[in-house]
Amino acid sequence: MPVGSEMHRWATELFPICRSITGNGVRETLKQIGKRISLTVHEVPSGTQVFDWKVPLEWNIRDAYIKNARGERVVDFQKSNLHVVSYSQPVKQRMALAELKEHLHSLPDRPDWIPYRTSYYKESWGFCLSHNQLLSLTDPEYDVCIDASMTEGNLTYGECFLPGESQDEVLISTHVCHPSLGNDNLSGIAVATFLAEWLQMRPRRYSYRFLFIPGTIGSITWLSRHQHEASRIKHGLVLTGVGDAGPITYKKSRQGDAEIDRVMAHLLKHGGAPYSVCDFIPYGYDERQYCSPGFNLAVGCLSRTPHSQYPEYHTSADNLDFMKPQALAESLWYCQSTVDILEQNLTYLNQNPHCEPQLGKRGLYRAVGGQAGEKSMEMALLWVLNLSDGRYSMLDIAERSQLPFEVIARAASALSSQALLVPQPSQES
Amino acid sequence: MPVGSEMHRWATELFPICRSITGNGVRETLKQIGKRISLTVHEVPSGTQVFDWKVPLEWNIRDAYIKNARGERVVDFQKSNLHVVSYSQPVKQRMALAELKEHLHSLPDRPDWIPYRTSYYKESWGFCLSHNQLLSLTDPEYDVCIDASMTEGNLTYGECFLPGESQDEVLISTHVCHPSLGNDNLSGIAVATFLAEWLQMRPRRYSYRFLFIPGTIGSITWLSRHQHEASRIKHGLVLTGVGDAGPITYKKSRQGDAEIDRVMAHLLKHGGAPYSVCDFIPYGYDERQYCSPGFNLAVGCLSRTPHSQYPEYHTSADNLDFMKPQALAESLWYCQSTVDILEQNLTYLNQNPHCEPQLGKRGLYRAVGGQAGEKSMEMALLWVLNLSDGRYSMLDIAERSQLPFEVIARAASALSSQALLVPQPSQES
Amino acid sequence: MPVGSEMHRWATELFPICRSITGNGVRETLKQIGKRISLTVHEVPSGTQVFDWKVPLEWNIRDAYIKNARGERVVDFQKSNLHVVSYSQPVKQRMALAELKEHLHSLPDRPDWIPYRTSYYKESWGFCLSHNQLLSLTDPEYDVCIDASMTEGNLTYGECFLPGESQDEVLISTHVCHPSLGNDNLSGIAVATFLAEWLQMRPRRYSYRFLFIPGTIGSITWLSRHQHEASRIKHGLVLTGVGDAGPITYKKSRQGDAEIDRVMAHLLKHGGAPYSVCDFIPYGYDERQYCSPGFNLAVGCLSRTPHSQYPEYHTSADNLDFMKPQALAESLWYCQSTVDILEQNLTYLNQNPHCEPQLGKRGLYRAVGGQAGEKSMEMALLWVLNLSDGRYSMLDIAERSQLPFEVIARAASALSSQALLVPQPSQES
Repeated sequence: MPVGSEMHRWATELFPICRSITGNGVRETLKQIGKRISLTVHEVPSGTQVFDWKVPLEWNIRDAYIKNARGERVVDFQKSNLHVVSYSQPVKQRMALAELKEHLHSLPDRPDWIPYRTSYYKESWGFCLSHNQLLSLTDPEYDVCIDASMTEGNLTYGECFLPGESQDEVLISTHVCHPSLGNDNLSGIAVATFLAEWLQMRPRRYSYRFLFIPGTIGSITWLSRHQHEASRIKHGLVLTGVGDAGPITYKKSRQGDAEIDRVMAHLLKHGGAPYSVCDFIPYGYDERQYCSPGFNLAVGCLSRTPHSQYPEYHTSADNLDFMKPQALAESLWYCQSTVDILEQNLTYLNQNPHCEPQLGKRGLYRAVGGQAGEKSMEMALLWVLNLSDGRYSMLDIAERSQLPFEVIARAASALSSQALLVPQPSQES
Repeated sequence: MPVGSEMHRWATELFPICRSITGNGVRETLKQIGKRISLTVHEVPSGTQVFDWKVPLEWNIRDAYIKNARGERVVDFQKSNLHVVSYSQPVKQRMALAELKEHLHSLPDRPDWIPYRTSYYKESWGFCLSHNQLLSLTDPEYDVCIDASMTEGNLTYGECFLPGESQDEVLISTHVCHPSLGNDNLSGIAVATFLAEWLQMRPRRYSYRFLFIPGTIGSITWLSRHQHEASRIKHGLVLTGVGDAGPITYKKSRQGDAEIDRVMAHLLKHGGAPYSVCDFIPYGYDERQYCSPGFNLAVGCLSRTPHSQYPEYHTSADNLDFMKPQALAESLWYCQSTVDILEQNLTYLNQNPHCEPQLGKRGLYRAVGGQAGEKSMEMALLWVLNLSDGRYSMLDIAERSQLPFEVIARAASALSSQALLVPQPSQES
Repeated sequence: MPVGSEMHRWATELFPICRSITGNGVRETLKQIGKRISLTVHEVPSGTQVFDWKVPLEWNIRDAYIKNARGERVVDFQKSNLHVVSYSQPVKQRMALAELKEHLHSLPDRPDWIPYRTSYYKESWGFCLSHNQLLSLTDPEYDVCIDASMTEGNLTYGECFLPGESQDEVLISTHVCHPSLGNDNLSGIAVATFLAEWLQMRPRRYSYRFLFIPGTIGSITWLSRHQHEASRIKHGLVLTGVGDAGPITYKKSRQGDAEIDRVMAHLLKHGGAPYSVCDFIPYGYDERQYCSPGFNLAVGCLSRTPHSQYPEYHTSADNLDFMKPQALAESLWYCQSTVDILEQNLTYLNQNPHCEPQLGKRGLYRAVGGQAGEKSMEMALLWVLNLSDGRYSMLDIAERSQLPFEVIARAASALSSQALLVPQPSQES
């Protein structure tokens, strides 16, 4: 099965789980992830102080409905977990329609879609339903039930650490707190998981840390408990909304010219597909926390259509159909290519810096004429030799030569095999 | 009365005075200014060496005319002080028309306008008249009289110093040497005076120094006598030609990226009116002296239509009508806004730099939904928190966020009131 | 005779000589150059190690032909030295047409042109001929002769050193290894020679070194034997293809913002003719060696149409007609102007840095009104005074003021004559 289809199939399994920022939905999701990659699950007790925030109570829900006078469920949590405002207080009572309506959310402009709503930091309860459903509520009274609990418990998150030669780390972070929504964020969960699966089989110069966390409170919790480890993170990506059919979008880190920012810009420029690169703004996903001034990590955000720019966002229309196997595969490819560049982006020293070495006698120059890409390989050899004075990394050379990184890397490899190039010593920061 | 009309009315009073680079016209002008603001008048004796220059003789004029054979004044200083070339030597004689014509200046292209001419650094005399007047001179001889004196006296200038918390100064400089011309420079005199009047009522972080000086020789004189004080000038503006209907124009200081340059660029960009920003050139007004390499002060020049780009410049058509109340008011508004930004452009330190603080519990986040500007205020809060690491001033944050300074300043104020932000210590340079 | 015509006439004399990377053709060419300028001829023995390379055997050729059965020379080296692949091994034998054809090179797309081919670093032999000639070969057998020798001998190059006040050097390098081709590179040889002739009569701040060398191996040989002298080269130009009718092209040095790069960009911008400026790439002429990372000299390349962009390149159509007297003259003019700027590009110190000096009393300001260029001269005086604080060279001032260097230089000269300006001490690097 093509990898995109496999990711989509796996996301389909995770789709029904009712996730929130705490609770069993997250645990169940992490259990499924743990079947594919080596995952450690952490539990942080409610009430734990994490910087300016407190870990909230654990929320679990068993059932919820609105019943009419005939006892029929006119709104039913069993049919869609979007029907309950996430983190709703429990409720069980009969109430007049007018009173009930103050707790109902719908989208008049999209009368068939159920909106997704949360109320994490304010005590309340509510139901979400399609506007057509709302219009059909005409009985004078309804029985309302949210069978949920809000208790001292834990915040749960998963972590997969893949050690490399260096203690320097690459962070991949994705949120696991959304219920039955596809692009936001089963797409991110799938790409992160499959990336880790691919990476755990490979030799690694960097160490890699994958975080599967509830949005905002999860990254704050991790950072507050791992300030020392955080300083080892040299590059990072937040993955979210990477499954829709729109063009790939990279939002730069706060630093703006970090290596990860330049890697992504290079990859997208040479990737051949439509894309956009945006400057950092302090709004969005967990990059807000990683890029807070006390950390200022080189963490950008990879998505496809930005969340504010598609109507399906945070509605039942962000479903499994909205997420495309091919888009998932392409997003994974960009992540893998990012890893490839980060791993190979060394700075070399030309061992024959005075004039050009004679490439012909080493079989490197016009050895095989007529081959496609031959000309750019010859130019790559000359560029790598010319710029490998210790001040230019492979990526610097790719940028200045306007050649793809991969061609530059192959040239460096050919030159290294002839002892014309050696890596600059001690590139660990 | 709207402030623009009040400035225009006041300029009307100053209009008839015959100003030059020295003499009683300047003294009378300063006396009027002194009725509105606390002004010190300085007298510097003729012959005083000021750097490479010498303070010139004092010039005063009582009357001047050209009379025809019938004793009629065909050119009359009493009707317009533009009729006499400023700094003309005294003369009283009958002369043939041909000889007289060598001393007459007119504008053939604008036959109704009287040109404005000076001869400060070369001994000569002359009359300016409309070209139609010139053509009507047909008598063989005329009686010519310039009843002026050129004596050892003083160069006169006015200074208004408004002390602030800091010894660092903001300089506002405007020239007072032009006779009955409106835009050049009663507009500058009016805006500077009303700005000082507004400022003397307000708390001030900076000290402010207003100079009302004759062009070129005035700024050279002040600088030569205040080299030490000059070093305290951190920001400055030369005001001139700020009353015509054209778009506002800012000419950058020699430094090019000084704070004043960035403040003006920011204000004009967000001001909503047409404008232009020009690079420094070493030609123009007293910024030439303030930006000479031995001083290199951060002094730009604020005007409306640049002097070389309107035909009324240095003619009788630059009259009270050419100067618009609304333009004067807008120019004053830009000056006041400049002061507001300079005063508030501190660098703050986020007291909660690790991850975002929880704004919701402090009532700062979506406290009042639906309000206009609400969204940009939320973004401003996040930007200020994100960038207040000690390397970004309020203006830096406004520029990076592309939000108006004023929104950033309000966000900083809200965050400061919650103790989330404190000013960086010792920002005095 | 106009200088362009004189250069063209002289190139006509050099045209018939059969040059290669070694041998008597180079010696004869250098002998002719030596009649115009003071030239030292160096001989470097075959087999000498020069960095990663070895000086090759010396190649000389007396005659070569392909004869048909009737004894007629159907391809004759005496008619064009392009007919023999340069550096061909000797051969003398009768062979079948089919076998011979493996050694023949033609251009089917340009059936009247003879291509130019070399085989320096691979043992082989061959003939070049027009495609029409090739098609006319229909005999079953031909007598083939290349009467050439490949012996232990020397690599020959010429050097003209013109000492100046400073040991800092300007390098002019041009290749002398091409046979009867006009633009590539009799044009470069002619411009370099006439430039040296012009320079040897003039006072010089810099020392100048002209190299007339075989391409690649020549610059490698010189650099390997003069590493110390190479460090004195502060600016340099490779001259090649400077005679065709196309627009002038400057390829920047590897440094990209070296003084020579800025000088050329300034000259071309103000030159009034079409031009292009290209970034450095590590492919092209001997700048590849001068700009290798071990040297990284500030050496750019001046040409007209880049070699890859005209079909006549490396064919018999690059003949004397293809090279235009006027283009040669213009290229020489750019070289001379480059020298003029380099020689005059000092940094001055304004001796009256506090406010402007009074130019009027020194006769420098509006002394002669109405003169063409007067206005820009006044601006130039003000710019030079304003920026001569020790941080701006003449070229910096020309760039910032957007005035031609020559106007800035004249202003500096006028100010220096009034003691308002003195050169900054010790500008030798």
